[in-house]
Amino acid sequence: MSEETFIYLDHAATSWPKPLTVVEAVQHAMLHDAANPGRGSHRMAVRASRVLFDTRKRLSKLFHIKNPNDIAFMPNTTAGLNLAIKGLLKPGDHVIATSVEHNSVRRPLEYLKHAGDVDVTYVDTDEEGILNIDHVAEAITSQTKLIVVNHSSNLLGSILPIDRIGELARAKGIKLLVDAAQSAGILELNVESMGIDLLAFPGHKGLLGPQGTGGLYIHPDVDLVPQLHGGTGSQSEAPEQPNVRPDKYEAGTQNTPGLAGLKAGVEFVLNETVQKIHTKEWLLTQRMMEGLLAVEGIKLLGPKLGQERTGMVSFVAEGIDPSEMSYILDQHYGIAVRAGFHCTPLAHGRAGTLGTGAVRASVGCFTTESEADALVEAVKEIRKQY
Amino acid sequence: MSEETFIYLDHAATSWPKPLTVVEAVQHAMLHDAANPGRGSHRMAVRASRVLFDTRKRLSKLFHIKNPNDIAFMPNTTAGLNLAIKGLLKPGDHVIATSVEHNSVRRPLEYLKHAGDVDVTYVDTDEEGILNIDHVAEAITSQTKLIVVNHSSNLLGSILPIDRIGELARAKGIKLLVDAAQSAGILELNVESMGIDLLAFPGHKGLLGPQGTGGLYIHPDVDLVPQLHGGTGSQSEAPEQPNVRPDKYEAGTQNTPGLAGLKAGVEFVLNETVQKIHTKEWLLTQRMMEGLLAVEGIKLLGPKLGQERTGMVSFVAEGIDPSEMSYILDQHYGIAVRAGFHCTPLAHGRAGTLGTGAVRASVGCFTTESEADALVEAVKEIRKQY
Repeated sequence: MSEETFIYLDHAATSWPKPLTVVEAVQHAMLHDAANPGRGSHRMAVRASRVLFDTRKRLSKLFHIKNPNDIAFMPNTTAGLNLAIKGLLKPGDHVIATSVEHNSVRRPLEYLKHAGDVDVTYVDTDEEGILNIDHVAEAITSQTKLIVVNHSSNLLGSILPIDRIGELARAKGIKLLVDAAQSAGILELNVESMGIDLLAFPGHKGLLGPQGTGGLYIHPDVDLVPQLHGGTGSQSEAPEQPNVRPDKYEAGTQNTPGLAGLKAGVEFVLNETVQKIHTKEWLLTQRMMEGLLAVEGIKLLGPKLGQERTGMVSFVAEGIDPSEMSYILDQHYGIAVRAGFHCTPLAHGRAGTLGTGAVRASVGCFTTESEADALVEAVKEIRKQY
Repeated sequence: MSEETFIYLDHAATSWPKPLTVVEAVQHAMLHDAANPGRGSHRMAVRASRVLFDTRKRLSKLFHIKNPNDIAFMPNTTAGLNLAIKGLLKPGDHVIATSVEHNSVRRPLEYLKHAGDVDVTYVDTDEEGILNIDHVAEAITSQTKLIVVNHSSNLLGSILPIDRIGELARAKGIKLLVDAAQSAGILELNVESMGIDLLAFPGHKGLLGPQGTGGLYIHPDVDLVPQLHGGTGSQSEAPEQPNVRPDKYEAGTQNTPGLAGLKAGVEFVLNETVQKIHTKEWLLTQRMMEGLLAVEGIKLLGPKLGQERTGMVSFVAEGIDPSEMSYILDQHYGIAVRAGFHCTPLAHGRAGTLGTGAVRASVGCFTTESEADALVEAVKEIRKQY
């Protein structure tokens, strides 16, 4: 990388840089603690187990989870969503999702539709990605077992009303799975008050931990078929997967150094508070949007200026292919954004950009105003040349 | 940890310490390269993709794999074994495994036996964990689709004749899945000459990479049902999982820093050579075994002195519970071993230690002769007190 200018506006894909405490925690774990957690009782294996437990405790605090053992670690959000969806649904079940779901929800659902005799309804949001709760209520049938929703669209930045969906789901005896890929560490998440039965979250985005980490919260009343069977370090003599949490859902060696880093990331978020982080990111999006709205031929996607959204601003520039825009931003301005479909064709369908894709600039808790301004200036210059 | 004495003899669970190049590679990736690989085309995302590709290339060199894209990264061996087993077998299929399989093979098989109408035969090894190939041949039926074998038992250290099993499987048109948890980076593995169709391996044991890494090699002629459906960064607009490798089997964000570390680990192994590492480890086991055989009331498990084995020595001490032995070794001598069942009740059944478990001391490529001697001396002293 040229060290001159590098402006990272791809936080919705993964956050960077990480707090230095995160990098140090990973290194410290590798050098001192990374025996195999739960396998053996020697001092280093005990320290490794402690790393995992401490990380679970911090996450429980952040998400208001009573029992840390109701969190199963996952290598990424996708694995958590797959476990929740495939572990819960049975032939004949009906599931409701929305038109702003990521492929990590849509593809497992489409798979089950064809291979598992599961019926799926995608409730449309409006063009900005705003969901009308009445439309969810109308989609409920006697077979509806699960509602899956994206807390915030990874293309549009719109925020879905989890608490109201939770209320509805609870009233109808339906389970609620929330995809917190774009909200964990950024928006308030309270599994108790919001009525969340299953919460899939990444470690490497808003929680500022390393890639290779994430998790799934599973309400104590929800029982899932494990997607991985194997060694757990517990009840080794049994041929079946142990029925004890978190082991039931965590077969195989866990990522001790990564989870040590995640612990440090969650601590950073707890200290900063999600409110402060979200406000900062929101202000940056507003600044960027104001700037981009002043550029001729730029169409912004998602909620309008002044409305709630998470830290991403997606746009299309008239006459410029998004991938070309992104290429020029990278090569000539050192600005990293993402172009394309962002694994969410459904949301593109709603936003009317299924033919072209879009450019997405996404901010993080270390993004500065001048970095946001640099993007606006660059887009302005590029537009002039077309 | 007390810095005074710490002798790590738990390499079969995870290797420690890692080469410093591994720790540095993880840190470097986190600080400079860990954008989201395959998501976006900016310079840092390209570097992240390059990390993954380079790691695949190094692994391909080590395992003699023609096309690096036939390797799918996994968070651990267990995930690779689950994908191979559940992705291949269909109702009515028959599968052959052995009595030295780890729970990471046995539990998926037991699950499929009950939930997936799959028939399983466990071929017995002898008490030392040695497999008679004729017994495998005898177990084959017209429905046999897959043979799954542990390359080396994680309790007994015995080495299974992969090349001969591969020959047999090939002749019968049966697929061969090898669990290389205890052999990757330690024993020669050549997927071509050994006739291996599926090879599941950990990144954090003999390959000296960080926890949270591993992989599954899938022969180009073998097609598996993906176990994770989700975003791949490719063909984003398709509702189905893309049919292109490795994306098909790698949904969700990959562990870039961990895989950067794995690359450094594999490079270390390639430089040292598996032959040299194995010989060193074997000599250490022989030294330990000779020492332990001289202690009254110690029974060694696995192949006899002078025979082939990987770097572990499991034993039971008359009148001392293995967990007590392991506790004393840790607390009084600073020696880390593992006691218990090691997730392999089948092998304990063969070795006659299903009632008690065993103590396992396992060496790695940095273990010294004096560390091996320290274990022997400690066991000798402990025995005297009983």
